[in-house]
Amino acid sequence: MWRRALGELLGTGLLVAVVVGSGIAATKLSPDDAGLQLLENSTATALGLAVLIAVLGPLSGAHFNPVVTLVDWVLGRREPAGPRLGDAGAYIAAQVAGGIGGALLANAMFGEPAAVATTARASGATFLAEVVATAGLVLVILGLLRSGRGALVAPAVGAYIGAAYWFTSSTSFANPAVTVGRVFSDTFAGIAPGSVLPFVLAQLVGGALGLGLAMILYPPRPA
Amino acid sequence: MWRRALGELLGTGLLVAVVVGSGIAATKLSPDDAGLQLLENSTATALGLAVLIAVLGPLSGAHFNPVVTLVDWVLGRREPAGPRLGDAGAYIAAQVAGGIGGALLANAMFGEPAAVATTARASGATFLAEVVATAGLVLVILGLLRSGRGALVAPAVGAYIGAAYWFTSSTSFANPAVTVGRVFSDTFAGIAPGSVLPFVLAQLVGGALGLGLAMILYPPRPA
Amino acid sequence: MWRRALGELLGTGLLVAVVVGSGIAATKLSPDDAGLQLLENSTATALGLAVLIAVLGPLSGAHFNPVVTLVDWVLGRREPAGPRLGDAGAYIAAQVAGGIGGALLANAMFGEPAAVATTARASGATFLAEVVATAGLVLVILGLLRSGRGALVAPAVGAYIGAAYWFTSSTSFANPAVTVGRVFSDTFAGIAPGSVLPFVLAQLVGGALGLGLAMILYPPRPA
Amino acid sequence: MWRRALGELLGTGLLVAVVVGSGIAATKLSPDDAGLQLLENSTATALGLAVLIAVLGPLSGAHFNPVVTLVDWVLGRREPAGPRLGDAGAYIAAQVAGGIGGALLANAMFGEPAAVATTARASGATFLAEVVATAGLVLVILGLLRSGRGALVAPAVGAYIGAAYWFTSSTSFANPAVTVGRVFSDTFAGIAPGSVLPFVLAQLVGGALGLGLAMILYPPRPA
Repeated sequence: MWRRALGELLGTGLLVAVVVGSGIAATKLSPDDAGLQLLENSTATALGLAVLIAVLGPLSGAHFNPVVTLVDWVLGRREPAGPRLGDAGAYIAAQVAGGIGGALLANAMFGEPAAVATTARASGATFLAEVVATAGLVLVILGLLRSGRGALVAPAVGAYIGAAYWFTSSTSFANPAVTVGRVFSDTFAGIAPGSVLPFVLAQLVGGALGLGLAMILYPPRPA
Repeated sequence: MWRRALGELLGTGLLVAVVVGSGIAATKLSPDDAGLQLLENSTATALGLAVLIAVLGPLSGAHFNPVVTLVDWVLGRREPAGPRLGDAGAYIAAQVAGGIGGALLANAMFGEPAAVATTARASGATFLAEVVATAGLVLVILGLLRSGRGALVAPAVGAYIGAAYWFTSSTSFANPAVTVGRVFSDTFAGIAPGSVLPFVLAQLVGGALGLGLAMILYPPRPA
Repeated sequence: MWRRALGELLGTGLLVAVVVGSGIAATKLSPDDAGLQLLENSTATALGLAVLIAVLGPLSGAHFNPVVTLVDWVLGRREPAGPRLGDAGAYIAAQVAGGIGGALLANAMFGEPAAVATTARASGATFLAEVVATAGLVLVILGLLRSGRGALVAPAVGAYIGAAYWFTSSTSFANPAVTVGRVFSDTFAGIAPGSVLPFVLAQLVGGALGLGLAMILYPPRPA
Repeated sequence: MWRRALGELLGTGLLVAVVVGSGIAATKLSPDDAGLQLLENSTATALGLAVLIAVLGPLSGAHFNPVVTLVDWVLGRREPAGPRLGDAGAYIAAQVAGGIGGALLANAMFGEPAAVATTARASGATFLAEVVATAGLVLVILGLLRSGRGALVAPAVGAYIGAAYWFTSSTSFANPAVTVGRVFSDTFAGIAPGSVLPFVLAQLVGGALGLGLAMILYPPRPA
């Protein structure tokens, strides 16, 4: 178990380092066009996320996301070999610790001072966007797993996030651990502490919605 | 059947949400370069479309497109297990409803007012472009299916549309349900109601052309 | 045979339509940055080329390129089932006709007048670049085929050309049929008639170099 | 053995030609935005690197990187069929020679004068960045190999480098042979001789860190 939790910590940490680090690079190098910054940021994130899932998937399942861990726990809680609540808790703790560490690592690599983010992001529109983004993420993962194509999860989740950065007004955080981590860098990818709770709530709502859709569309036994 | 129609509704809806939403984000973030806007829009669409087909393919076939549904019906209408006309009708209704819903969802996520699009797109050049775009789309799908490589349809269709946004002067709608949906957002990806009929006509012509080419190039039994 | 030649004509035609059409779109939409134009052009080409090879590969081998057809003929000329010189000639004729047709189709889709290109591209630097680009292309194809991984040719050739647009000073034509086709559009992707011969010569030299490297590195029986 | 060393020389040479050549093209074509230059450079590198690994992997293992060769030697030194120190030395010599040759080839293709680079890159932040970049690279390779998914190494390493150009402040050299090669072009991708030693030191530290992490996370026998 400790090895799998270490995988979650490392994977979530590197994911946030990619998100925050590429955001810092993008704003430094492309100061004149916010869209180009986001394109650079989303391209790096899509590629990095796909690789991290591919590499760490066999070890820990490569959740890197408390919503995914909770969904996994809900779906498996009646099965003898399913994850226990304590396991889920260890995963989530590792993810949050990793997320914070990843932001600090990105700051250090770019010589940015450690600072709490000041970018307020919460609004009705971004709440809806995070619900949609997270529901879609859960549907992608469960749809592929429940139709026997788990090998596609890594590229599909990378591609999904690469699109979701653009089609949601929140740029698709869709992940409570990443949201918390991004508090710890006052840069392009940062999020002010006051926006964290609404974002996490929206992500939990979206996770439940995605879980429900996946159970309807992909029932355990094909109908 | 209702589950598969729900898959078509959801898939087409999310596809239009990706197209319209990423278009809104692109124009807001990159106001100074129309090409950069289209690059952001086409990249998000290519990634999102490939993921949606991969996830929903085993459920409904992931048509998301009345032309594809009609081609499927034409090819299978003499087979005992082929789709019936009523099934095709249900698919198309779900696709159009999903397309409209997706545009409204994108508007809501970005706080855009609901409005009918005002961008006129019909011309002789775009008519030809839609014929070519749709013929190519049908040829890609049927060519892969008829040579036993259905697993490649998802990435290939995503990549094809990513290219077709650029090599056709119409930015490749190639899909009547998406065309109708895009009426309901007066933003980057919108299309004025008066341009819908010529676009849909061109798509039907292109679908027939693509079907004919596929039947010539990939006959049922290899020659 | 006629079906395979038709596949080569169609594939080469659509390839040139992608190259020329996306070039026209890029210059119209991104008038202020030649690099952004090339990024748009190279992205569309890489995606489109990979799809065309994937779709038409089982039919004709998806050469779309006289150099590839000649290499195929050289390698197979002693084998009973290898291609005959007449087959190679038919392929090459179909490729050149398709290339010209694709340029005219792109012109028509964008409402561009039919005109012979005026962009002179020949120089010592671009001669070297075309040798390198074509040698690399042949090495990629033969390296994958001779190590039993033909299924990777489609994405690998698309990715290779996506890189070669950038790392060669000629933007990597690497294909005599595409070179001839691109004469027939006086737009971004055009090439003046006077530059065709040096480009084709360089491509033939590069093809021979790539063939030689592949025979050394991947001998018929593993050493 | 000579054939495998030739593969390493050719592969590393073409990799550096892609890195340096696409950097030259990017600065010439996109003079106004350093981020766009890096996006063009990173896209070309990610695609080219993935192709080179796919093509040459069956021949030489497609290390193209002394750190990877050293890690391979450390892991296999107790095995009868493992690489010997002399083999590793031949690989590294071929990689360095190829790296230098690739830079000179890129200069020649673009008509750039041969000159030693003047871009100083060493700092505390870039030292940390190279440690992280190289550790991540080794973890990606070993994680995939040790979990039986070697076929994913080519696309995963390409994607990883495409992300690492952005999330590290050093733009992720992560390779001593490429670092030495990039001394020989005073262009976008160049590195001044005085920065080579700190970069290589950081890469060796990163390689050791990545090896340690991989041994902990993917022990020889699953725990």
